[in-house]
Amino acid sequence: MARLKGFEKLISVDDALESFFDALKPKRLQSESIPIEDAMKRVAAENVLASTDLPRFDRSAVDGYAIRAGDTFDATQFKPRSFKLIREKIVHKGCAKEIWTGNTVPEGATAVVMLEHTRKVKNGFEIVKPVTPGENISRKGEDIRKGERALETGTRINAYHVGLLAALGISKVDVVRKPRIAIVSTGNELVELGKGLSPGQIVNSNRFVLSGLCRELDAEPEYLGIAGDDEEEIRAKIAEGLTKADVVITTGGTSVGVADLVPLVIGKLDKKGIVVHGVAMRPGMPTALGILKEKPIFVLSGNPVAAVFGFEVFVRPTLLELLGVQNETRPWVEARLTKRVAGALGRRVYLRVKAIEQKGELRTEPVSAKGSGLLSSLTKANGYVVIPDDREGLDKDEKVTVHLLSPVAKED
Amino acid sequence: MARLKGFEKLISVDDALESFFDALKPKRLQSESIPIEDAMKRVAAENVLASTDLPRFDRSAVDGYAIRAGDTFDATQFKPRSFKLIREKIVHKGCAKEIWTGNTVPEGATAVVMLEHTRKVKNGFEIVKPVTPGENISRKGEDIRKGERALETGTRINAYHVGLLAALGISKVDVVRKPRIAIVSTGNELVELGKGLSPGQIVNSNRFVLSGLCRELDAEPEYLGIAGDDEEEIRAKIAEGLTKADVVITTGGTSVGVADLVPLVIGKLDKKGIVVHGVAMRPGMPTALGILKEKPIFVLSGNPVAAVFGFEVFVRPTLLELLGVQNETRPWVEARLTKRVAGALGRRVYLRVKAIEQKGELRTEPVSAKGSGLLSSLTKANGYVVIPDDREGLDKDEKVTVHLLSPVAKED
Repeated sequence: MARLKGFEKLISVDDALESFFDALKPKRLQSESIPIEDAMKRVAAENVLASTDLPRFDRSAVDGYAIRAGDTFDATQFKPRSFKLIREKIVHKGCAKEIWTGNTVPEGATAVVMLEHTRKVKNGFEIVKPVTPGENISRKGEDIRKGERALETGTRINAYHVGLLAALGISKVDVVRKPRIAIVSTGNELVELGKGLSPGQIVNSNRFVLSGLCRELDAEPEYLGIAGDDEEEIRAKIAEGLTKADVVITTGGTSVGVADLVPLVIGKLDKKGIVVHGVAMRPGMPTALGILKEKPIFVLSGNPVAAVFGFEVFVRPTLLELLGVQNETRPWVEARLTKRVAGALGRRVYLRVKAIEQKGELRTEPVSAKGSGLLSSLTKANGYVVIPDDREGLDKDEKVTVHLLSPVAKED
Repeated sequence: MARLKGFEKLISVDDALESFFDALKPKRLQSESIPIEDAMKRVAAENVLASTDLPRFDRSAVDGYAIRAGDTFDATQFKPRSFKLIREKIVHKGCAKEIWTGNTVPEGATAVVMLEHTRKVKNGFEIVKPVTPGENISRKGEDIRKGERALETGTRINAYHVGLLAALGISKVDVVRKPRIAIVSTGNELVELGKGLSPGQIVNSNRFVLSGLCRELDAEPEYLGIAGDDEEEIRAKIAEGLTKADVVITTGGTSVGVADLVPLVIGKLDKKGIVVHGVAMRPGMPTALGILKEKPIFVLSGNPVAAVFGFEVFVRPTLLELLGVQNETRPWVEARLTKRVAGALGRRVYLRVKAIEQKGELRTEPVSAKGSGLLSSLTKANGYVVIPDDREGLDKDEKVTVHLLSPVAKED
């Protein structure tokens, strides 16, 4: 096979994503009903309406006495008002009923006076300040009213959502099925972890990184093994991935040389299969985006860091579409750069950085500007900064947005 | 039993945590060895040193030709230098060997020239620009050198760490055992989800929220069920928790009334058992912190939101100590308040807020200033703001730190 001439022209990141989504038209996956205790991190597939008011009844918010607020309006330090403690169901004028936090407010009572604001007297207590009607009462429906939305479609469910559903008496919830991601590694030089290495061979580490990134999004990775640099092996793995999964990710075999087999195989399977090949980004330039049997296939670089940014920029937004997640971005902070960094005109550069809080100020230092193969640049970083394609670089002390991969470190 | 008089005096959040840690002296749990593919989110229990250089050999970073850089120094557009393609092992003067990304750089070669920077000629190619020695070569040990630290004790392991370990050929890693958390709910008014409710009863939702918050930190919650407002029932559940778990959390029974049984039970089990009771915070004032059999026991309010902030402020840092996590804080952003909010002099207030990105600017609006029972204030919020105890409130447009519970929402 003849050597290819390189990427004729690179497409910008934004255009690549737009063309790819235009062609793919990603649709949310089906839903499934699961017990709420398993729903953490899952994505709500439906709006859940409150089936009841919460609280279900007027509740006391404190420990104290249920009274009629009107009885207290003229109470002062000099003219305390006294109340008689009763055990009957209804609270009449001048009477009070003991009540604990969470108890139903008895009929007749319009407020609860806190224990600490009363003074014991014979047969009851006295108070020296007026109490406002409704004071210390959690009204029926104050938290959420019957028919109001308790959970919105597309929400990533957290502990508080689960709690609210439980409080409403809802024990199951419809969530979007987890996307299944087939991971195929290609390359004659790759060896599985735990096997011996011959000279020139390397451990296949990408599959671990990509599986981890899938799990972070609550998608389900399945690793299909290594295909050698061989059309038939690659075709077989891709076919297996398309059968088993919603998404296929390959790594390796995407550069411009003779080993650039994955896009070739995809193109042979479907001549419209490759939608994008070659993106104006660094790292990740040789990324290709394909569609086979209406399923997305991401052809990522074999270089670990390039594969990570191919995932970040293309796979991640696609998985979020399949999950139907609304509005999920990585947390970010703004920080000043500790030094000038070079960009690459015409390319969007993803710079690994370490954001540090120092004396209450956020600073961020580039971890390594070079080496798309350097995994340690990612383990040392806690985020990345995007250098736009129309900038020659970013200046020292420039305020930049750091997209956080892990929490910000504190230093003294 | 006589009604208690309320909390004699409240201790500040910082003092409470300090006294509690002084008494508890939390120690990191034991470690266990697990396969690296299961290590996501776990905490490294040891420093892992690189067992080998990475790359293990000088590798080409591109597809192209391995050459001697010195041969190119005088190459120009007008005076191209030509190279003869060879198949031998060693690259001699004027010769070049085809090489692919990731291949071992052959003996004799000192640089790799990119395919795209060459022009085919008979028996070889020519180039028109000098190549720097070392260009396009990933040097042995450039990513990480043998003996360097690949993973640091106390690191929360992410996908990139797993990848680096794999690349080094390391298949198992020592991580800190997951803390086991026993959750005990107390209160006569509580009913398990799925059972019918009589008037005045509510579903026990706290156990779901607390389990979820434990799981977020990768701790293992075990729910022990509901104890009624009865000393013996509570004592039995606490004893079970101390047997089964590293940490016990109870909810309910912490206010100042007759039902304030949990601290009473703990005090009877060990008269030094209660270290803190009553904290100058809102919500969460009735929180108690205890130690039984050298294990921490957190006595949280039965009010859902108060329980959440009791967890956030006291349980979370304790679990991080047991896990031996370094430097883990929630992501935060700085944002301007959309309106003035009241604080509470002498109390630290945890205000639920919703941070929103609007036209590139971050604003944050209070979700609800009232109601420690209002779960919906947490499902509507994506973070919280701390109002210091010496502030009467925070001003409109004041820049505040939002501790994020979930990602920031974007609005147009």
